[in-house]
Amino acid sequence: MERPRHQGMAKNTYMRWRLPVVCLLWEVAMIVLFGVFVRFGPEADAHWEEEKQEMNLTSDMENDFYFRYPSFQDVHVMIFVGFGFLMTFLKRYGFGAVGFNFLLAAFGIQWALLMQGWFHSFKNGKILIGVENLINADFCVGSVCIAFGAILGKTSPIQLLVMTLFQVTLFSVNEYILLNLLHVKDAGGSMTIHTFGAYFGLTVTRILYRPNLEQSKDKQGSVYHSDLFAMIGTLYLWMYWPSFNSAISEHGDAQHRSAINTYCSLAACVLTTMAFSSMLQKKGKLDMVHIQNATLAGGVAVGTSAEMMLTPYGSLIVGSISGIVSTVGYVYFTPFLESRLHIQDTCGIHNLHAMPGLIGGIVGAITAAAATEDVYGKEGFIKAFDFTGVYQTRTPSVQGGFQAAGIVVSLLMAFAGGAIVGGILKLPIWGDPAAENCFEDEVYWEVPEDEESDVYHMHNPDKPASP
Amino acid sequence: MERPRHQGMAKNTYMRWRLPVVCLLWEVAMIVLFGVFVRFGPEADAHWEEEKQEMNLTSDMENDFYFRYPSFQDVHVMIFVGFGFLMTFLKRYGFGAVGFNFLLAAFGIQWALLMQGWFHSFKNGKILIGVENLINADFCVGSVCIAFGAILGKTSPIQLLVMTLFQVTLFSVNEYILLNLLHVKDAGGSMTIHTFGAYFGLTVTRILYRPNLEQSKDKQGSVYHSDLFAMIGTLYLWMYWPSFNSAISEHGDAQHRSAINTYCSLAACVLTTMAFSSMLQKKGKLDMVHIQNATLAGGVAVGTSAEMMLTPYGSLIVGSISGIVSTVGYVYFTPFLESRLHIQDTCGIHNLHAMPGLIGGIVGAITAAAATEDVYGKEGFIKAFDFTGVYQTRTPSVQGGFQAAGIVVSLLMAFAGGAIVGGILKLPIWGDPAAENCFEDEVYWEVPEDEESDVYHMHNPDKPASP
Amino acid sequence: MERPRHQGMAKNTYMRWRLPVVCLLWEVAMIVLFGVFVRFGPEADAHWEEEKQEMNLTSDMENDFYFRYPSFQDVHVMIFVGFGFLMTFLKRYGFGAVGFNFLLAAFGIQWALLMQGWFHSFKNGKILIGVENLINADFCVGSVCIAFGAILGKTSPIQLLVMTLFQVTLFSVNEYILLNLLHVKDAGGSMTIHTFGAYFGLTVTRILYRPNLEQSKDKQGSVYHSDLFAMIGTLYLWMYWPSFNSAISEHGDAQHRSAINTYCSLAACVLTTMAFSSMLQKKGKLDMVHIQNATLAGGVAVGTSAEMMLTPYGSLIVGSISGIVSTVGYVYFTPFLESRLHIQDTCGIHNLHAMPGLIGGIVGAITAAAATEDVYGKEGFIKAFDFTGVYQTRTPSVQGGFQAAGIVVSLLMAFAGGAIVGGILKLPIWGDPAAENCFEDEVYWEVPEDEESDVYHMHNPDKPASP
Repeated sequence: MERPRHQGMAKNTYMRWRLPVVCLLWEVAMIVLFGVFVRFGPEADAHWEEEKQEMNLTSDMENDFYFRYPSFQDVHVMIFVGFGFLMTFLKRYGFGAVGFNFLLAAFGIQWALLMQGWFHSFKNGKILIGVENLINADFCVGSVCIAFGAILGKTSPIQLLVMTLFQVTLFSVNEYILLNLLHVKDAGGSMTIHTFGAYFGLTVTRILYRPNLEQSKDKQGSVYHSDLFAMIGTLYLWMYWPSFNSAISEHGDAQHRSAINTYCSLAACVLTTMAFSSMLQKKGKLDMVHIQNATLAGGVAVGTSAEMMLTPYGSLIVGSISGIVSTVGYVYFTPFLESRLHIQDTCGIHNLHAMPGLIGGIVGAITAAAATEDVYGKEGFIKAFDFTGVYQTRTPSVQGGFQAAGIVVSLLMAFAGGAIVGGILKLPIWGDPAAENCFEDEVYWEVPEDEESDVYHMHNPDKPASP
Repeated sequence: MERPRHQGMAKNTYMRWRLPVVCLLWEVAMIVLFGVFVRFGPEADAHWEEEKQEMNLTSDMENDFYFRYPSFQDVHVMIFVGFGFLMTFLKRYGFGAVGFNFLLAAFGIQWALLMQGWFHSFKNGKILIGVENLINADFCVGSVCIAFGAILGKTSPIQLLVMTLFQVTLFSVNEYILLNLLHVKDAGGSMTIHTFGAYFGLTVTRILYRPNLEQSKDKQGSVYHSDLFAMIGTLYLWMYWPSFNSAISEHGDAQHRSAINTYCSLAACVLTTMAFSSMLQKKGKLDMVHIQNATLAGGVAVGTSAEMMLTPYGSLIVGSISGIVSTVGYVYFTPFLESRLHIQDTCGIHNLHAMPGLIGGIVGAITAAAATEDVYGKEGFIKAFDFTGVYQTRTPSVQGGFQAAGIVVSLLMAFAGGAIVGGILKLPIWGDPAAENCFEDEVYWEVPEDEESDVYHMHNPDKPASP
Repeated sequence: MERPRHQGMAKNTYMRWRLPVVCLLWEVAMIVLFGVFVRFGPEADAHWEEEKQEMNLTSDMENDFYFRYPSFQDVHVMIFVGFGFLMTFLKRYGFGAVGFNFLLAAFGIQWALLMQGWFHSFKNGKILIGVENLINADFCVGSVCIAFGAILGKTSPIQLLVMTLFQVTLFSVNEYILLNLLHVKDAGGSMTIHTFGAYFGLTVTRILYRPNLEQSKDKQGSVYHSDLFAMIGTLYLWMYWPSFNSAISEHGDAQHRSAINTYCSLAACVLTTMAFSSMLQKKGKLDMVHIQNATLAGGVAVGTSAEMMLTPYGSLIVGSISGIVSTVGYVYFTPFLESRLHIQDTCGIHNLHAMPGLIGGIVGAITAAAATEDVYGKEGFIKAFDFTGVYQTRTPSVQGGFQAAGIVVSLLMAFAGGAIVGGILKLPIWGDPAAENCFEDEVYWEVPEDEESDVYHMHNPDKPASP
């Protein structure tokens, strides 16, 4: 059966040489840079046996691997299955959702190990990596997966790789400014990952505005089973978010507390999302788009404050509010952004990451500003905010101010970076699809015969297959 | 395309105000109660830094977080993906299965943190929570997910929330009686979770008996892909069950042993399930219903005894038997229950949870009664059954008797509680669907256009889309 | 609706008595053998409480359970969901893929606990098991899952059980020769699992060559959603492979290092796979078969060397090469193997496991031969290669030679064993399907009504259901 093929009509989406060249050259570059710079950190190096004795460690359990590896694996699942399947909700873009997410994340983590390594793990000319670096690389790529959500279905794999290259770079710079220069706390990344990633992606999709996108409107929806595939992504993000927010917190009580706060916030978020999803529809029915996305806003919104003494009821409040904001966003803001501001946001990342990310930054600033030695204990207070060295005299309210500054910096970096990268992606050389071929896997993928004709063929064996 | 809509014909299933009001009011109640009662436990509180010194702990590794967090995440997956997807086998109820399970579990874990907290973690007027409380809240909600299986497709989301409210309450009372008053061991919950949850659900569905349910019989089956979605649920339950049964066992050998026993029991269960599935069908073919469900009975049936010295071969025996009982149940008991006892059990929880749960309680009683200091070691014996304080003089055979009493109490609580709650759910105010609209997502969900017309539309672009 | 049924025409595929008898007899045998031989290891036994004092352990954390259980669960997911769903890509063999994988693995892990136990954990007439044994049993079964990939869709469940019985046995012998007699390192199983498993399976499928297999060619492809189900398998294998390769490495730096190397190798592998998938197709489009499989080759190819000081850039090189080799294999070798060598390899295990497995063995031999005390540290060197006792004087280059010998032994065992087992499976008593019924679930499974007629039925309620 020969199917009508549109993709060559308006634009050249032929990937045969462009994609392989980009992938292979960049991988060679990674190998060279890793060869020059990347080595095992002390806890992953075979010298650890001697190191252990020098550090008087009595047990292999003190290796950071055992503190963080289970959380790392959960984060890893969130990036690849979570984000990948969350975006399979489109009826004919499942391959692109899962496959391109796979591609950009696999490249991104390599580049992030380098970029973040230069900023944070550079010693004597080498980047020394351990399990915490793997988590941070996954985190960094998480911000790219978020931005991908805004342009899902409208870009070529090369554009995604180019965006990843630049976004990982900018992410690392922004992260360095926040964590090292402003000495801001952001373990779950409300600012560095969500606010930055989302506004970056929204700016990019604004620059790449497609006035004729309604030509592929029929493909911009879901079908029954694609919505179920998307729920796999949703649930893995939801379930493992406590690991996400606690993965790089300090050992002990901070990791423990982060997980509890996130658990509580997410639980509350589900109830307010369901409530508003039903309330905002005339027929009172629940909308899968909200359930798939807004239920996760609670994880985003405690990203900064989860490791602080937010308290379980504080988490419930934050989660409840973020679920409401996010659901309202899907119903009212997304159409507004598209029609008035020309921001075409395929997955609604403005509702799931941008607004909840801002809430997260603000809640973090407030929680930090409200911290007291009474609540944290004398030593816990210093440990929680790392008020040592040059920061010994910083007060909670000053910390709150710096936290707020971190939001502003993240926003500025996102807008400026997104504008530049959007401009680069607008060049007519990257093989993006024509407006009528958006949200369609056939442009970049070998797509199997459709199920209808298969079923037909199998259960009417006497008849010839459709021509 | 306007589809025929049945749901308004016989019953008012309009959720627009009822569902939001319930969700929001209850979430506000949670916030208030958490604000009054719930605080971080010592290992999640920032004071841990000082606590550690007082307790002479040399390593953050001693924080309970590291003993239990990986198991917690596995249990979390079982509750949300495991139970959620296991119930997606129905051809047109995938949204309801995954989505309502999500809703009730998200509410249930909050309420369970409170209820179980009052009974077990109440100190100086506060409930102090840590990772073990999160696991126990998930466990408690597991019993609600089980009961949901019996009424799947026949209830409104409000009914499910009401049931969750009451069942979590009753679960906590029953758990308190068993664990604290009877001093019974039940780490994997054969009695507290499975027996109680299943007979509670069966009683509820008996009270809610629908004489005309055959009107929606055409929707009470699976399609090819819905059976594959259900297998995702099955496998995650199966794979992570060793974590479930070991999650709250004592540190060290007990957790280790629970995982091994459960692993063995589940492996054996698969073989006997396959054997009987083929044997009990004239054509000798395997039935997906059995593979999806009865393979899990082995996990239920060692829920009480997994942390005891059941031994690997003992686990194989228990797993083998439970697979047989469960499969036979699907073939013979379920039709009998429906036709004779008017118990309409959508997922067959009687076969997967009720009977194996009883087996689990009995095996636990026998294993406890057969315990000797020789087998457990002097100290291991005391530790395994917590024969300290007022229980110092309890003998294994007495313990076996109390274990058996625990089964009886769980059954009585389930029948009484199920009858009352069933009666409440029968009130005509909750918006449950009419008999001909059961097992149909369109009643409560915005359902996307069906795949058939999409495929048609996409591959016949010359023709107009169906009106 | 009565569908045409082919399966009885040419061959007797009736399973009703054969399958149950095999399953039940074998399970009884397992129970008896476990009863005679298998007991809890010291860290899972209730005597651990006393053992701990004798060994002067201050913390329950020193129990091996906490070092390995999270990795075990990841490996468990790889075996059951990873392999199971990876094979669901066929349009009408999803039940068989997931279900038979479930069956053979559940039997295999029991038999592997015995076989590997006799070789490695036998003390005073008993096999003492702990979490490491569970991991090893899963590993052993992994090699059977690999071989299953070659014969997927062409065999009866009984044949799979028979193959499992023999393959687990041969695996254990081969593993004993490599690990104990040759003193070879192979923590991630490039040789013992992948090379052995793949060439064993390829030999079996060669012996079972079906000249008329093109009669079921229409079913040997995927449909849109079956490709997405397969991506669930792919991603879980990809994400958890760092756990696979590090699961049984030495505590501390070796586990840490294995995870990092595997993470890096897999990331690189994705890029070269995407590059070559696009490059080798005239239309330049990506092929789901490559993305589903070749992206995993990087995990296979560092299976032996991941715990050595391969270094991150070394891992990138190995991963890059294996992705290329594997993708080229799918495009050129698989058709060649089928047409010229009569090797019908359903899943292409030659490309995913055989060639990358060989690469892994060779890379391991080179990495071992290149080891120096300078790189590993004096103690690290001895620990990494276990150069103690009778191996105290072994040099790296000699170790490299033994590693190479391990590849040869694994190949010989695979060819010889595969030939014998293939001969046994060729006996006309096992109920395998006729050529025209291959890749078709209806032969061994109760298959629900197809979706087409359901959709038809539901949305045309005025018309009667098709008869």
